Amino acid sequence: MLGVCYYPEQWPAAMWAEDARRMREVGISFVRVAEFAWSRLEPRPGELRFEWLDEVIAILGAAGLRVVLGTPTATPPKWLADRSPEVLMVDAQGRRRRHGGRRHTDLSSPVFWEESRRIVALMAERYGRDPHVAGWQVDNEFGCHDSAVCYSPAAEAGFRLWLERRYGTVEALNAAWGTVFWSMEYGSFAEVDAPHLVVADAAPAHLLDFQRYSSDRIAAYGQMQADTIRAASRDQFVTTNFMGMFFELDPFDAMRAYDFASWDSYPLGHTDRLTLPGDENQVFARTGHPDVPGFSNDFYRAAGRGRFWIMEQQPGPVNWAEHNPAPLPGMVRLWTWQALAQGAEVVSYFRWRQVPYAQEQMHAALNRPDDRLDRGGHEAAQVARELAALPLDPPARAPVALVVDLETEWITRFLPQSREFTYKSILLSWYTELRGLGLDVDVLRPGDDLSGYALTVVPTLGTVSEAALASFRDAGGVVLYGPRTGAKTADFAIPPNLPPGRLQDLIPLKVARVETLRPEMPVAVAGTVAGAGGLWREFIESDLEPLARFDDGEGAFYAAGRHHYLAACPDPTLLAAVMAYVVGEAGLESARLPRGLRLQRRGSLTFALNFGPDAVEAPAPAGAAFVLGGRRVAPQDVAAWRC
Amino acid sequence: MLGVCYYPEQWPAAMWAEDARRMREVGISFVRVAEFAWSRLEPRPGELRFEWLDEVIAILGAAGLRVVLGTPTATPPKWLADRSPEVLMVDAQGRRRRHGGRRHTDLSSPVFWEESRRIVALMAERYGRDPHVAGWQVDNEFGCHDSAVCYSPAAEAGFRLWLERRYGTVEALNAAWGTVFWSMEYGSFAEVDAPHLVVADAAPAHLLDFQRYSSDRIAAYGQMQADTIRAASRDQFVTTNFMGMFFELDPFDAMRAYDFASWDSYPLGHTDRLTLPGDENQVFARTGHPDVPGFSNDFYRAAGRGRFWIMEQQPGPVNWAEHNPAPLPGMVRLWTWQALAQGAEVVSYFRWRQVPYAQEQMHAALNRPDDRLDRGGHEAAQVARELAALPLDPPARAPVALVVDLETEWITRFLPQSREFTYKSILLSWYTELRGLGLDVDVLRPGDDLSGYALTVVPTLGTVSEAALASFRDAGGVVLYGPRTGAKTADFAIPPNLPPGRLQDLIPLKVARVETLRPEMPVAVAGTVAGAGGLWREFIESDLEPLARFDDGEGAFYAAGRHHYLAACPDPTLLAAVMAYVVGEAGLESARLPRGLRLQRRGSLTFALNFGPDAVEAPAPAGAAFVLGGRRVAPQDVAAWRC
Amino acid sequence: MLGVCYYPEQWPAAMWAEDARRMREVGISFVRVAEFAWSRLEPRPGELRFEWLDEVIAILGAAGLRVVLGTPTATPPKWLADRSPEVLMVDAQGRRRRHGGRRHTDLSSPVFWEESRRIVALMAERYGRDPHVAGWQVDNEFGCHDSAVCYSPAAEAGFRLWLERRYGTVEALNAAWGTVFWSMEYGSFAEVDAPHLVVADAAPAHLLDFQRYSSDRIAAYGQMQADTIRAASRDQFVTTNFMGMFFELDPFDAMRAYDFASWDSYPLGHTDRLTLPGDENQVFARTGHPDVPGFSNDFYRAAGRGRFWIMEQQPGPVNWAEHNPAPLPGMVRLWTWQALAQGAEVVSYFRWRQVPYAQEQMHAALNRPDDRLDRGGHEAAQVARELAALPLDPPARAPVALVVDLETEWITRFLPQSREFTYKSILLSWYTELRGLGLDVDVLRPGDDLSGYALTVVPTLGTVSEAALASFRDAGGVVLYGPRTGAKTADFAIPPNLPPGRLQDLIPLKVARVETLRPEMPVAVAGTVAGAGGLWREFIESDLEPLARFDDGEGAFYAAGRHHYLAACPDPTLLAAVMAYVVGEAGLESARLPRGLRLQRRGSLTFALNFGPDAVEAPAPAGAAFVLGGRRVAPQDVAAWRC
Repeated sequence: MLGVCYYPEQWPAAMWAEDARRMREVGISFVRVAEFAWSRLEPRPGELRFEWLDEVIAILGAAGLRVVLGTPTATPPKWLADRSPEVLMVDAQGRRRRHGGRRHTDLSSPVFWEESRRIVALMAERYGRDPHVAGWQVDNEFGCHDSAVCYSPAAEAGFRLWLERRYGTVEALNAAWGTVFWSMEYGSFAEVDAPHLVVADAAPAHLLDFQRYSSDRIAAYGQMQADTIRAASRDQFVTTNFMGMFFELDPFDAMRAYDFASWDSYPLGHTDRLTLPGDENQVFARTGHPDVPGFSNDFYRAAGRGRFWIMEQQPGPVNWAEHNPAPLPGMVRLWTWQALAQGAEVVSYFRWRQVPYAQEQMHAALNRPDDRLDRGGHEAAQVARELAALPLDPPARAPVALVVDLETEWITRFLPQSREFTYKSILLSWYTELRGLGLDVDVLRPGDDLSGYALTVVPTLGTVSEAALASFRDAGGVVLYGPRTGAKTADFAIPPNLPPGRLQDLIPLKVARVETLRPEMPVAVAGTVAGAGGLWREFIESDLEPLARFDDGEGAFYAAGRHHYLAACPDPTLLAAVMAYVVGEAGLESARLPRGLRLQRRGSLTFALNFGPDAVEAPAPAGAAFVLGGRRVAPQDVAAWRC
Repeated sequence: MLGVCYYPEQWPAAMWAEDARRMREVGISFVRVAEFAWSRLEPRPGELRFEWLDEVIAILGAAGLRVVLGTPTATPPKWLADRSPEVLMVDAQGRRRRHGGRRHTDLSSPVFWEESRRIVALMAERYGRDPHVAGWQVDNEFGCHDSAVCYSPAAEAGFRLWLERRYGTVEALNAAWGTVFWSMEYGSFAEVDAPHLVVADAAPAHLLDFQRYSSDRIAAYGQMQADTIRAASRDQFVTTNFMGMFFELDPFDAMRAYDFASWDSYPLGHTDRLTLPGDENQVFARTGHPDVPGFSNDFYRAAGRGRFWIMEQQPGPVNWAEHNPAPLPGMVRLWTWQALAQGAEVVSYFRWRQVPYAQEQMHAALNRPDDRLDRGGHEAAQVARELAALPLDPPARAPVALVVDLETEWITRFLPQSREFTYKSILLSWYTELRGLGLDVDVLRPGDDLSGYALTVVPTLGTVSEAALASFRDAGGVVLYGPRTGAKTADFAIPPNLPPGRLQDLIPLKVARVETLRPEMPVAVAGTVAGAGGLWREFIESDLEPLARFDDGEGAFYAAGRHHYLAACPDPTLLAAVMAYVVGEAGLESARLPRGLRLQRRGSLTFALNFGPDAVEAPAPAGAAFVLGGRRVAPQDVAAWRC
Repeated sequence: MLGVCYYPEQWPAAMWAEDARRMREVGISFVRVAEFAWSRLEPRPGELRFEWLDEVIAILGAAGLRVVLGTPTATPPKWLADRSPEVLMVDAQGRRRRHGGRRHTDLSSPVFWEESRRIVALMAERYGRDPHVAGWQVDNEFGCHDSAVCYSPAAEAGFRLWLERRYGTVEALNAAWGTVFWSMEYGSFAEVDAPHLVVADAAPAHLLDFQRYSSDRIAAYGQMQADTIRAASRDQFVTTNFMGMFFELDPFDAMRAYDFASWDSYPLGHTDRLTLPGDENQVFARTGHPDVPGFSNDFYRAAGRGRFWIMEQQPGPVNWAEHNPAPLPGMVRLWTWQALAQGAEVVSYFRWRQVPYAQEQMHAALNRPDDRLDRGGHEAAQVARELAALPLDPPARAPVALVVDLETEWITRFLPQSREFTYKSILLSWYTELRGLGLDVDVLRPGDDLSGYALTVVPTLGTVSEAALASFRDAGGVVLYGPRTGAKTADFAIPPNLPPGRLQDLIPLKVARVETLRPEMPVAVAGTVAGAGGLWREFIESDLEPLARFDDGEGAFYAAGRHHYLAACPDPTLLAAVMAYVVGEAGLESARLPRGLRLQRRGSLTFALNFGPDAVEAPAPAGAAFVLGGRRVAPQDVAAWRC
């Protein structure tokens, strides 16, 4: 189903009814409102003005639309900042930030918690049983604009309590962080600071715990809002909208509070920000790289325990990247079908009408500022019609499991050892390799049940826990581990038996030494697979005969039974070779797709989504019954068939 | 006439008389003094020491030199900063800056205003009727070193009053800024902050108004000084020295206080800082790009209502760019003649003698630190001799009007939509294209009378006001508008009828969508004109048949009668084609000049100024009478003829 | 002899005896301990816990090892920062920095001095006569992590006293700094600030004096510690460990406190940070550029008055560069032999065993975290065996003197005039040119006795003092001066007779003008030598006939008797030509060595050290007796012979 984000407070009340009618006309089912409206709901402390929202909900409901209510806590009103400056965040430079944008609050501030609880409770009491309100979105894009981590006194106090709960005694903390190094030892929890403005680096375990605290704090704050809503509501869902490829908080943890996940999809802006290989930044500038939304669809389907929405879908050019191309005709429809194919329950466009003022005035919408339905609006309407004619099966399990772990991103960032070895680039390149072979992918966390997967891919995994080890041992199929897997203990230290730590139980090898080289210094790899590596390179001690070796004779790729270990950050050639090898070992059928083409199965349906510049033939079996499009798939077009 | 900047306080009094004599020998008429001398005029609070300055003025006057007195407020003494730290500026990071350089003051501080008024009044009372004092320079290079905008409490207080005057009610402000977006609404003017340390961006209208306030504040501060001077002086001019291609303040507004404009010309440093196309950074490294001083001469002639000085002219290598080449022999003379040809009344060199110590010790002067006349000094003397023999006509109107607008720079900066689409680069490239065709250019503000111009060029103009619309309608000749013209209302919002807003009255088209692409993604344009665009690209809705189209069929260049609209940021090829086209439509004669050659008419005189590496033939009519140089113009040389 | 850095507090006491035994087995003689152990020596204020250190020293001593005690003041405990926040440094942004890393203290803080003196005195009283303690290392890597300069109130107070001692009267300070420029004048020393947060630049002399103060302050703080130690010790040396190519403090000044110099050698990380010409960053990525350690060996041998140690020698990959390659097999041995050949008394490896936690967990050691002797450990053992069989002569005087001056680095940094003209790049390229000709080099300070040197090379020297002039005059051989020599007075001003100032007594020429060009603008030089220059270029006035000219006819290279002046920053071709020319003039035999090969004489021994990728033939005379390796020197190998 389709939805849209709507800001009635920004338009004359006289327009609301016609807006609602036209939304239905486009085929919209859900309308999100109120997420930034605190100053309109409570213009002065305690002075509540909910009547306009009552009216909006009534109008939308009367038109047959279902409402998603946003809690407005991402944008508290000025009077709150002035009355209680401690609700404002403090950044890593120690500066108290100011009102005038959004996300400027301190989620550790008791005052801000109390104010948030109050406004959410007021909304929940009023709308918690409103039949037009389908559910709630808590806050908005937690962590956006570098706001996930705050260094306020309140955050420091919260961190200390968190540490006390985690470690029990300060001696345990000292041992876990290794504070004997550089005399960093603490005599009590009260002595521990937030890790900023340190000369030289802070202890990596200190940084990691502060990131864990910050992520937990966001999760707890969302949980508080969800609890407040649920206490007063009935038969309404609660979710929050996450962001794509955003690793400052762990959505799997945060999801304990929510009924399903939702995320905000802006393919072009994020593609512009990536540094893609070759000419891909140009080729995909107006379509987005297919795996930018693709990865996040799989990721949030996992986080949402199988259920997710696109809460905000890019409808045209955006305003916040360094370059803001216009999507090619068809792309809004293609992104929508891609999300639906990957299991989205609802795709909700941001936003109904382009607002002519303020920060996002250059951000397109389904309607132009002059209220004409824009191209994105027409494409949404087309999807609505197609969707009505095409019942979707529930998503099925993919053949490939991709193990993703937020702490690995934090570990990689806090102890990089190489400028270029970043979790995001590794994750995306490995995912893209799988997708380019036409394979569906399920995202799993370390420790999840892998027994049903023919192939499990672990691009890199900072820590191999007991649970992760057990799940790898019990994996039904082939498993591939990338470099730096098992490199750390849960306390961010080198395992006593050296990396890959516990994984040595499954594949008997030891990382004796690591080197990281400049990108212009590839080290050739040859053997069963060939290519090069060097951005990250491990020197292995093992009695295993390597499947491939570096050109200095050191082992590069190992297998022990179903378990495979790649001791390098591969270049594209080596990555393709290794992936083809393990896919073959796993007995999976695959074929390299034309550039920009993606396949996705949803139940009995197979979708072919063409992000590339050329028309392609859909790789459908001879007798396939096309239910969307046909065998020839034009650029920016989609086809689907039933097998 | 020629002038020079002189700092007698930096040299023994015994040298003054000989310096004066040698200035006359070089051909100097005006001598600027005292601009940084506050600590010598008032070494301790209230302890005045004006006697040395009396003597300097007497000596210079006796030698036949006329004095320009600088007010010393750009460099208050340390005792003021210590006694009243609130006179120090606060930067965008919230840091109170410190004494030790210059321009470190807060022009919103009432204390600093009072102290400034006091020292200026003391000077004006003493010298306001001194016959040797020709006039005054207020302060020095307002805004230099990122000092135009200050975030102090005093600035915040001033801003609130300014807003109250502008909007009357806070409801009007909320409406104008669109504060309903993101709950930014204010309950009173007292709640409005200076827009810094905001998380995410501040509202663009908030940023724009703060820039307007800051620019106005500088203008008002200069006005206060000018008023103070005029109250005590007779028959003395008042000016201030602006900077080249500096857009933090609006000199047209500021000029209400002054009798004429003056500006400081440093061609080589500014050329080094620009990123010029092809090999131009090398070709023009030692000459400066001809349009770096050329544009500012035209710009400040306009700001000065036809009257301007070069208050500081580069005399040799400077010290502040990343690379500091030595001007080629002849360049000091060439720059001087260029300014005179473009209408300068006085060209004043910075400075008389290189000071061997402090921040500018590597900045050349007319004399070396060992008091030998340097190459720049000899060239100045040559100009003085030539000028004595060559009476100059008053400047005449140019055939081409270039519409320039400071707010457009602010709008482009506060809502960029593309990293590369900057007002400065657009302005300079369009100006250069006109100059490369041998055309003289007058700079005008939007709303100025355009009736006398065969061609009006509007590279881009954020807002098309009623007045601007009227002047475009009444323009006598052809008008060319570039992309993003009319894109905003005066409140920094999209016009209700979409861009180009009011301009749709003159050319019926609408900008339905904008895209901005990476520089490596040109979009080909073909038709009446050809080339490419893509850094900024508009999708036009119009019943007009475009004169040229993008390669996807969208219209790129339109005309309706005399009005032409270019819907792209053009590459050099397209820019040249469009300009040649409208120049032709305007019936102007033009020819592409050899690289580095510039022509300029002043009354009956035509100057040919050769910034290029090769000798060229002056494009003079057959019977032209050369009054300076001859038909063959050597590199770094100038010729002039009467027609 | 060999040493090792050891952190017993990081390992169970049960391991200490076995560690000691194995150190002896490897061939270690010296063991540095306790340098970061303050929190273990005094976990709470006044609560001393020295017993564990007693035991460590006893165990090491019993095993035949000699102990070097580090004072732990680079890492004070948290309780000190909490009790006395004024011990924390304030950075240039005005931010008080925080505990959690190292070097976060203010060396101007009286409280920190007192606490430092107390803990050092306690250690000295306890171990000052311990026969197992050979000596002391004061603090650790002064200035590391941008900590050399601090802007605290205490630093400001200290700076004012320092200025008062230097100048006597504030009038003298005003004259020296040229504060009349920009009204920067001070009425008293109390008015002078630390030069930060200034708008525009601070006066260069102000910056220079603050750097001098900061360097002196570090020297004085080290002296205080050394005095405290000596007051309680007998027959123990005192040193501190400096860093390679680190110019924030002047080790020659600091060395007044110490018995010999020591420095920490990390060739690979520093090579990664340099931008080397051509493919050298790749060729030398795993060996380090030979002159990275080579220069510092010569530099600290000079600073140490002929005596130096490597206190920390890289033993494998490190953790702190952007890329961290693994040294090629043999490199740990090669670096050790290089240091010994250049006169090192002891090479001490950092560290005994890789610590699996905290900031340096990815920093290799002689032993892996799992306690297996690593490659670096085996190579150290090899050196120990070779060294036992090869008695080393004392170092002899080199034929070439290289004049190095820290203030020149400061001058070049505070008044750059060109982005690319940096002292570090000049120094390293000139040194490399000499070394590539197979010549040994002694580093000298300006004013040192040059009478014994066939060739003296002065790449650039900010100020030519009377003493420097005298030593140049009395130099026994040929002298080569590079550009910007003699460009400033001691007060950071241009000399009255223009650059090269006093040097005009020895070579009659004057720098009339300077220009600095972009790297892509070389200016060709031809004559006795040929090549190009342009990053820095001087226009010379002289009656001398130049030996070579720039292509515009200006003189580029001059000689007056034995004194040679190069008026350009040379490109590699010109540098090679000039160096070959003066080496010839000096009558020195030289030959260009194969890439990566270095020669070094130590008494009767000549070492050939091969950092290059190919095997080479050692340039030994026919009958040379090889005492290490043979005539064919493999990559990463060393040979030595006696002549």
